[in-house]
Amino acid sequence: MNNKIQQNFKRKTFPADALRIASLGGFNDVTQNLFVYEFIPQGKEDQSQILIVDCGVGFPESDFLGVDLIIPDTRYLEERKDRILGILITHGHEDHVGALSYVLPKIGKNIPIFAPRLAAALAESRLTEAGQHVKFNIVEEQKTINIGPFKIEPIHVTHSIRDTFHYLIATPMGNFYHGSDYKFDLKPLNEPPPNLRRIAELSTKGVNCLLSDCLGADHEEYSVSESSLAEMIDNHIKSSKGRVFVTTISSNIDRWSQAITASKKYGRKIVPLGYSVQRIIKLAQELSYIDLKKSDIIDHRRASNFSDNKLTFLVAGFAAQANSALSKIVMGKHQVKVKSGDKVIFTAPDYIPGTTSGIYKLIDILSKMGAEVIHSGSTKDTIHVSGHGSQIEQALLINLTNPKCLLPIGGNYRHVKKYEIMAQKMGYKPNQILIPEPDQAVTFWADGKVDFNTRVPQRQVLVDGLGVGDVGHIVLRDRRTLSQNGIVIITMLVDTETADLVSEPYVTTRGFVFEKEAKSVLIEIKKTAQKKFQESRSKPINLDFVRQTVQGAIEDQVYKKTKRQPMVLPLIIRV
Amino acid sequence: MNNKIQQNFKRKTFPADALRIASLGGFNDVTQNLFVYEFIPQGKEDQSQILIVDCGVGFPESDFLGVDLIIPDTRYLEERKDRILGILITHGHEDHVGALSYVLPKIGKNIPIFAPRLAAALAESRLTEAGQHVKFNIVEEQKTINIGPFKIEPIHVTHSIRDTFHYLIATPMGNFYHGSDYKFDLKPLNEPPPNLRRIAELSTKGVNCLLSDCLGADHEEYSVSESSLAEMIDNHIKSSKGRVFVTTISSNIDRWSQAITASKKYGRKIVPLGYSVQRIIKLAQELSYIDLKKSDIIDHRRASNFSDNKLTFLVAGFAAQANSALSKIVMGKHQVKVKSGDKVIFTAPDYIPGTTSGIYKLIDILSKMGAEVIHSGSTKDTIHVSGHGSQIEQALLINLTNPKCLLPIGGNYRHVKKYEIMAQKMGYKPNQILIPEPDQAVTFWADGKVDFNTRVPQRQVLVDGLGVGDVGHIVLRDRRTLSQNGIVIITMLVDTETADLVSEPYVTTRGFVFEKEAKSVLIEIKKTAQKKFQESRSKPINLDFVRQTVQGAIEDQVYKKTKRQPMVLPLIIRV
Repeated sequence: MNNKIQQNFKRKTFPADALRIASLGGFNDVTQNLFVYEFIPQGKEDQSQILIVDCGVGFPESDFLGVDLIIPDTRYLEERKDRILGILITHGHEDHVGALSYVLPKIGKNIPIFAPRLAAALAESRLTEAGQHVKFNIVEEQKTINIGPFKIEPIHVTHSIRDTFHYLIATPMGNFYHGSDYKFDLKPLNEPPPNLRRIAELSTKGVNCLLSDCLGADHEEYSVSESSLAEMIDNHIKSSKGRVFVTTISSNIDRWSQAITASKKYGRKIVPLGYSVQRIIKLAQELSYIDLKKSDIIDHRRASNFSDNKLTFLVAGFAAQANSALSKIVMGKHQVKVKSGDKVIFTAPDYIPGTTSGIYKLIDILSKMGAEVIHSGSTKDTIHVSGHGSQIEQALLINLTNPKCLLPIGGNYRHVKKYEIMAQKMGYKPNQILIPEPDQAVTFWADGKVDFNTRVPQRQVLVDGLGVGDVGHIVLRDRRTLSQNGIVIITMLVDTETADLVSEPYVTTRGFVFEKEAKSVLIEIKKTAQKKFQESRSKPINLDFVRQTVQGAIEDQVYKKTKRQPMVLPLIIRV
Repeated sequence: MNNKIQQNFKRKTFPADALRIASLGGFNDVTQNLFVYEFIPQGKEDQSQILIVDCGVGFPESDFLGVDLIIPDTRYLEERKDRILGILITHGHEDHVGALSYVLPKIGKNIPIFAPRLAAALAESRLTEAGQHVKFNIVEEQKTINIGPFKIEPIHVTHSIRDTFHYLIATPMGNFYHGSDYKFDLKPLNEPPPNLRRIAELSTKGVNCLLSDCLGADHEEYSVSESSLAEMIDNHIKSSKGRVFVTTISSNIDRWSQAITASKKYGRKIVPLGYSVQRIIKLAQELSYIDLKKSDIIDHRRASNFSDNKLTFLVAGFAAQANSALSKIVMGKHQVKVKSGDKVIFTAPDYIPGTTSGIYKLIDILSKMGAEVIHSGSTKDTIHVSGHGSQIEQALLINLTNPKCLLPIGGNYRHVKKYEIMAQKMGYKPNQILIPEPDQAVTFWADGKVDFNTRVPQRQVLVDGLGVGDVGHIVLRDRRTLSQNGIVIITMLVDTETADLVSEPYVTTRGFVFEKEAKSVLIEIKKTAQKKFQESRSKPINLDFVRQTVQGAIEDQVYKKTKRQPMVLPLIIRV
């Protein structure tokens, strides 16, 4: 009996080993990264051993009104709390590490966490703000991590944040390559290039499945190196006769570093504006990620002591976030004022869902204030580069790892589809390219079979202010209705005894029409409420029926009269 | 005494002639085009003579919640109704012609209107829908238009809609070149190239001021010709083995025409989906703008009689408009279903403020349904081209007209600034480049002086459903508050005699928290309302004071407890 048959035979009689991979933020999503690697010995679910990779937040789409963040649904983990052996972090972006403060209290605060140095520092600082104290184990290349049945080799790669790692995860079901967000920047700034030789070397043992970032699959040309930007930013600062303002994603230490290097070269002092920038600059100094002495930095209140061409401001809020330093400057609410001769450099994407028009509004007002504004939409020259590799780099990773199957992650369907087409051109067959539904887990069996049979519960947990999970679909639906045409409130006082109205209904509106100018509409609403109340009342009064009748009639009337659909809310109070 | 001094002297004693140009949609705006050319003889404002150029709507930014359209503030014209001599339309886009049905009833329905053939047809069809019947005079090149003191020469140019004109407007104050939206497409489709020789010829008489579209000033390379697209679209249709769906801005007849030409070439039938597409295709057929026989078109209910590779659908709703044909297809609410093997071509911009994430959601779902989706963000190849010329074409127009001064229009501040820098490089001095505030009119005096002293009132008139102008800043502010955190309504019944509460306050919320899960917050609100009522009540009761006290206390409490800022609305009712 050969091995293969024996294995198959075994599986039928005694369930075989399996490795399950689930995405708690959902497959086919860019943010909310939280992957579960679960080894299930002999098919015994209650004896499984779990490794978590990443623990990040999601960013709401623009129709998630009032929602600050989304966090992954961790019920699957909560039910398996005692079997979680460790958490592995790939890099320091919020969508990979920002959910720790929400998730750790639910699944256990003492789970060992392994993270790159910068990711650990960023996460620690956030956790401390949330009153949580967590120790991180620092990931380094060549330092194998052993977590239960998982033996993990970290591999240094490049992305838009330093200290980004891929992991080759050896399991009893073979090797899995976790290729989270990456690009293969061969001339990166201030850090070594991606360790392609190490990828090749480790992969010689055979890779069962490659999980690969696919977000850049829309692009066919090799991604642009971060170092090509440095020259551009240097030129912009060199040619400026006045003050320079630089803005980017606050966590982008390397971008700040480029602005700092060029500024120092031309004798400029650095003025960080805004909490998030000050925080990240301080952290980067402490970790020696940027070369910045105390004497290089000055407070904005002392800036007027320096001539304009000796000043570079690093400003938080490129995406027009409310209350950010840049928004305050633009609204004239900051001590620092932009004036003619200033140059403002947006070294960031112009296009971010939900914020684009805000960014352009900033650019317009800054232009009006007299500043020269440099942004991606305004120049042929590159002033921002993506952190995600194109199809070419994705194909390179496939070539280097030579995996049996592929599982594209970190992209939406359109990116997954492009990745799939590319992989097929490389010779992969449809059944080798795994495209699960968001809530399907992928189970790899000892005999090489793969199935999508396990469903992992998924409900988006929305964070709004201090509330976590108390904003659901009903609340969001109401916010959408309210946002479009406001609310019409009809208060009716009913005599409990007689079931008669005690007085005329009161009509109050907000966000519907300007009441002083729309009296006739309000008077008609009042009349309809009164009429429908009379028609629908009974003794004893059926409040639900009256409410529904009044609501329906007023919705119809308002729509007919105004073509608007405000929320109609009858408040019926017994007196 | 030399001439100059004499003129200055004259001007002081007998006011001189003047020509005033105002933008009722506001300078430095892209949409809402409505320009006023006003000749003021001898400075006598009450004897002025007015020519209107364009009459378009504005498109709301994404924070104008629930607003459908913006129309220019026409109070300036209403006060000068009897002195309006004519309306001139440059082309058929909604932001140049779409406000007629709102504006004509206010300023007079019998004002002569001059418009290109296509613009007239589009406007007439809209006006008829609004129950208004208006006759248009068709503009043609070589046909001088005389309107009072204005002698107008139409010049054919190119844009993203056929039949686009520039106008050289001769006035007693010299010649003004009205260079509204244009590109200089030297290989356009189905229409002659822009008449550059005519521009040059007419300008030999001297141009006092060039008003020039500046929207493309962000771009430095010559714009791409519409004809380069035709080949691309042909290739995409040729290579499709299944059904093809094409979507673009519904009014873009030439883009539909490209899809139709290629489809017919490969033996495909045309299936228009959605009201706006059906309307424009019908209109284009009637005007012979597209070559489409009855037998080329089929109804979607008959489509299943044809094999997949014999069908091209022209679909309304590329920008994910609610209830559009494309949105219905994506939501599975249309009789036509997308399936594997279909190709969907978005030949339209990916980036439109406020709609971008909606467009990407469409693309994702279509990808998931199995369609291959071609869009601007997914391909190196051009699948959409802008209708606005770049800096090069803007410089060409300056060169051809050789004007004394420049007035950039049709762009935001950032485009105006780029245009200004470009013009300065061409030798224009700062005082020759006119950059008024949105509400400043530009007055050209007989002595060559120009001032910005006149202010034109400007209030955005918002259209929401059937209401025009009844949604103002207060209503919008309320909608924004409601959209973020909903509303908390506290109803309190007060005994008029005793100034006591008749019962406990009633707390109702919408869009704030899911009430069933947030009882404790609601109970606390109730308690606070009761407490603050007691503290602030007096005899006789001061309702405003009580309302403000309760509202303030609950706002503070809710924010402290939840970090949310819903609208807090106390309804105090005397019984």
